[in-house]
Amino acid sequence: MSGIVQCVPNFSVGRDKKTLEKILDKIREKDVKLLDYSMDKDHNRSVVTFIGQPEEVIEAAFDAAKKAAEVIDMSTHQGEHPRMGATDVIPLIPISGITTEECIELSKKLGARIGEELGISVYLYEKSASSDRRRNLADVRRGQYEGMKEKLISEGWKPDYGPKELNVKAGVTAVGARTPLVAYNINLDTNNLDIANKIAKSIRAKGGGFTYCKAIGIEITERDIVQVSINMTDYTKTPLFRVFDTVVREAERYGVNVIGSEIIGLVPMNALIDSADYYLRLEEFDKGQILEKRMAE
Amino acid sequence: MSGIVQCVPNFSVGRDKKTLEKILDKIREKDVKLLDYSMDKDHNRSVVTFIGQPEEVIEAAFDAAKKAAEVIDMSTHQGEHPRMGATDVIPLIPISGITTEECIELSKKLGARIGEELGISVYLYEKSASSDRRRNLADVRRGQYEGMKEKLISEGWKPDYGPKELNVKAGVTAVGARTPLVAYNINLDTNNLDIANKIAKSIRAKGGGFTYCKAIGIEITERDIVQVSINMTDYTKTPLFRVFDTVVREAERYGVNVIGSEIIGLVPMNALIDSADYYLRLEEFDKGQILEKRMAE
Repeated sequence: MSGIVQCVPNFSVGRDKKTLEKILDKIREKDVKLLDYSMDKDHNRSVVTFIGQPEEVIEAAFDAAKKAAEVIDMSTHQGEHPRMGATDVIPLIPISGITTEECIELSKKLGARIGEELGISVYLYEKSASSDRRRNLADVRRGQYEGMKEKLISEGWKPDYGPKELNVKAGVTAVGARTPLVAYNINLDTNNLDIANKIAKSIRAKGGGFTYCKAIGIEITERDIVQVSINMTDYTKTPLFRVFDTVVREAERYGVNVIGSEIIGLVPMNALIDSADYYLRLEEFDKGQILEKRMAE
Repeated sequence: MSGIVQCVPNFSVGRDKKTLEKILDKIREKDVKLLDYSMDKDHNRSVVTFIGQPEEVIEAAFDAAKKAAEVIDMSTHQGEHPRMGATDVIPLIPISGITTEECIELSKKLGARIGEELGISVYLYEKSASSDRRRNLADVRRGQYEGMKEKLISEGWKPDYGPKELNVKAGVTAVGARTPLVAYNINLDTNNLDIANKIAKSIRAKGGGFTYCKAIGIEITERDIVQVSINMTDYTKTPLFRVFDTVVREAERYGVNVIGSEIIGLVPMNALIDSADYYLRLEEFDKGQILEKRMAE
């Protein structure tokens, strides 16, 4: 298996840099690229982003989970963010040259190793979920660490890998493939939050809008404007340009203009190339024509 | 010096694969990526594309020019395309993380080595040209191989590097930095060539249009349409989206629609990202947010 996989594990450590560093070192030891990490004191939680070839990513994620089980003790952990394990969740995201199906396969391999070699209960979630009720991370994590002892032995919640008995120190880990999420905001030239909310409702899946789009209206007080704040949960199926164009049209309905849009954090190149392809009406364009893509092959 | 440079040398061999292979092998030996090569029998000429770090690209280009001087004999060369040397021309193109100025510096280094170590006369051209009359390759090459003996000793045509006496076997080589050229065509839903020509004239520099745009109208007989066939000579200054939008508007003037556009061959990622940035009205977008870009760093 080849291609590039992104891994964004969340660890239940957010107040002790030294502890996080021990975990990060395990990732740095492998032939993967550590792109980003952030600690949140209130959440007592860290989010780490790295990227690389499939096998190396799995190795790095496993080593990091092993280290987290050594240096974090869930039985004394407190924090505002819902959590159930020292390594709380490990999403695997196909970036290029690899399919979601292959990432599902990888997630199962990783889950099995964490279950068997580390003795930690693992639930597969999102695209890797073994049943619909396990697809949503919020459902998997419901009850949090404190409720996991009961959950693991309850009807329908047998872990996909690892013991049915709670690993008291390490807790439970969710592993799964998911599509890359793009955090995308569209700014309006009004401070009327009601309008942003109405537009958000019109584009989000729950409001009857686009399937892979979550959206809310928020106020940007420092600029005295409102924003449609969007999570694009699968840009390959609901593309950025379609959401953007729809927001422009919906805003017109209220006599409002779109000032601009923002991409927050990292974005896969294809999410933007698709927009260029659309607006330039490209015929038979092959992404292999992109110099940087050809180089990376 | 770091970054990525593209090199597109043209060799005067187009009918003998074995001879070209000997030259290609010299490029393959270096830590550069051979992206493409094509031979043309009528032209008796090959175009090779490779890419890599500055120093490695220079080494590969030098080794290839050295081998070409061994395996090609210009004194017996015939072909339809204008040519003056076994290695006819070596363009160096900044792709990412490197400036045009740095590529000019590289071209001078390469030209000096070819002149001194191989005893081949070298003219710097395009961005590297030592005078305006040497900027255009057609001017530098005028007279072709057969006229070079005289040209090298004529007023104003002293070579930038190497001997004033013609190297009879290897001929003369042009070396220079140029911006990446994007071959870009826009298709119209009419078979009226006159309209394509009028639009081409309106957008090209010579007709009063965009500075870094060359364009002509051509017929695509198999589809019964016409096309505005464009060379974007510096997409960083004249972007694709501006030319596309202008062609859409100009076409409207004749009651004609744009069916689509085509990118021929390789294109730098930024040429497309710029279009996405424009149409999505991105605010404060940094190309470092692109996953693939971050990875390549």
